[in-house]
Amino acid sequence: MKKRIRIKDIAAQAGVSSGTVDRILHNRGNVSEKARAAVEKVLNQVGYKPNIHLSGLSLKKTYEIVISTPHASHGEYWEAIHNGIQEAIDQHESIHIKTTYLTYDQYNIYSCQNVFTQILIMEPDAVIIGPTFKDETIDLAKKLSDKGIPFTFVDSMVEGTSPLAFFSANHYICGYLMCKLLKSLIPETSDIAILQAIRIGDQSANTSILRRKGAYDYLTETNFGNRIHHIQFSVYEAHRNEEMMREFFTAHPNVKGVIVLNSRGNVVANFLEQNNINDIKLVGVDLTKPNIAALKNGRISFLIDQNPDYQGYIAMKTLLEFLILQARPKVENYMPLNIVTKETIDLQLEFNFLKKI
Amino acid sequence: MKKRIRIKDIAAQAGVSSGTVDRILHNRGNVSEKARAAVEKVLNQVGYKPNIHLSGLSLKKTYEIVISTPHASHGEYWEAIHNGIQEAIDQHESIHIKTTYLTYDQYNIYSCQNVFTQILIMEPDAVIIGPTFKDETIDLAKKLSDKGIPFTFVDSMVEGTSPLAFFSANHYICGYLMCKLLKSLIPETSDIAILQAIRIGDQSANTSILRRKGAYDYLTETNFGNRIHHIQFSVYEAHRNEEMMREFFTAHPNVKGVIVLNSRGNVVANFLEQNNINDIKLVGVDLTKPNIAALKNGRISFLIDQNPDYQGYIAMKTLLEFLILQARPKVENYMPLNIVTKETIDLQLEFNFLKKI
Repeated sequence: MKKRIRIKDIAAQAGVSSGTVDRILHNRGNVSEKARAAVEKVLNQVGYKPNIHLSGLSLKKTYEIVISTPHASHGEYWEAIHNGIQEAIDQHESIHIKTTYLTYDQYNIYSCQNVFTQILIMEPDAVIIGPTFKDETIDLAKKLSDKGIPFTFVDSMVEGTSPLAFFSANHYICGYLMCKLLKSLIPETSDIAILQAIRIGDQSANTSILRRKGAYDYLTETNFGNRIHHIQFSVYEAHRNEEMMREFFTAHPNVKGVIVLNSRGNVVANFLEQNNINDIKLVGVDLTKPNIAALKNGRISFLIDQNPDYQGYIAMKTLLEFLILQARPKVENYMPLNIVTKETIDLQLEFNFLKKI
Repeated sequence: MKKRIRIKDIAAQAGVSSGTVDRILHNRGNVSEKARAAVEKVLNQVGYKPNIHLSGLSLKKTYEIVISTPHASHGEYWEAIHNGIQEAIDQHESIHIKTTYLTYDQYNIYSCQNVFTQILIMEPDAVIIGPTFKDETIDLAKKLSDKGIPFTFVDSMVEGTSPLAFFSANHYICGYLMCKLLKSLIPETSDIAILQAIRIGDQSANTSILRRKGAYDYLTETNFGNRIHHIQFSVYEAHRNEEMMREFFTAHPNVKGVIVLNSRGNVVANFLEQNNINDIKLVGVDLTKPNIAALKNGRISFLIDQNPDYQGYIAMKTLLEFLILQARPKVENYMPLNIVTKETIDLQLEFNFLKKI
């Protein structure tokens, strides 16, 4: 058991009252510079580490934190991020936190603009942003910085902003790895298709662009000599979609491997299943419910997990430690990428991050 | 923020004193059955969950816990298990815990017998066992059970014992997966070698037997028609070792893929490196320092991580929750298996379990 450091011992060593030590520990001001210097010297000597739970207990303030991400559907990526955020809140129950979830339609720029305007009107104590639209996010980030409101990013970083920290998968490595895994599954002579699910009016998200670059770089580095098809398909217009895939795979019978750059790998898996096409290998990303089903029935061979629950957890924990303890985090944080197969998925789900802690 | 449940409110609702509620919450006895029933009814109604940290604070008892595993070397598997155990202890600093590490030479049965005898003389409050020798472990487990001393296993389960819980990789799936990954890397026509590092006088550990069965079952299920070589090599007699590998690979030029069933994949990797053999693929297990080096230089293509730090952490946490809160855990716990590559190893190491929490 670690030895506890008592406030009255610190006070005695620093030659101040216990009340002064307490005010310094909890940033409640009203302390002379001389007293602060004396106390901080003793704290350093004894290796004092602030305890966020004890600090939180003595704070009367309620922290208003806005979480602004794309809408979260059940069993999907953004829900896992929200679950992680909630876990961090639950773990810090000594701190008074008021959270407001302002989510937007990631395929509707007006929805995003509307929500970001609300955030600026609210003037919360801190914001967690799951970005989609680049220019809108840069604009929001600039205004938050001007107001001195700290914010963290989950899912991805947006260049030209100054977050307290970001927590993101390394999307470039993700794409590189997906292609490498796919290559191990298909014949030397096979062509490859790189698919991307989009909705109407959608520009490619930054994450997909980075993944595509990783995928192409892998193929270039390994001198891939066969054809690479880059195609987009719609998740909404299911009928056109199926027609498009049928046309594509009929026209290109030499494509024996497909990677899907966003979390909709299950759409291709379902097409292959329904059409009884058994010689095309598929690598996808994100442990969504439909992707997991396709992994288990063998249609998807590998899924990459971006650890969204941990992203949400650490983004909120970092914000709280900054708000309460003024702890400055590392800014760039790339999450682990887990490679998941049919054999490991159940173990992975049983002990995912939120169940581990 | 969750609403806190106050002892005096529970006491008022149950019609007893606060002291009675306190005695029930901390299992300090001296409470009538009627009062206990009334309090437990209220606790259920309000959804009370015991808090191990608060319970620990009010306990004067020091818990003696013995950790008995093979000797831990720096940067290796058992050290990671010990680190996880220490993390759980650090997280429960309100509980007085005295730990004694009694480690043994996993290749010397007398060393193990000696240590197990010491445990029985000590009569600690609980034991964490990393088992190697089956009969010795069954004997120790039986005697601990007779004395009413709870114990948990890490690394693997030993049949014929009744632990409070065990925390182990699923070694069968591990072997199955290693073979599946290897198959994806080598030509259709290639033979496969399944290697196992042993030391003199060593019987195969149970973990290796399970992994080998998984590997063979994969090959049988997929109708593998080429040759499978099963060979053993010594980690101590480095010279004989190299000679043996040279003879083997010279005699069997059609072996283009190797799995190493225990954590010594680096020995084969070094042989391939030193002899400039570039067409043999290797899959190994455990993120030991030398294995990580071989993964990074490309000699090992995939490593399976058994999450030893998490095994140690959860084994100790489970024991403490049982000792303090009488919480009965799930007995069978198979840890996640992480598939790690050159691309993901650094992300994995930066955010391993102990750094996540």
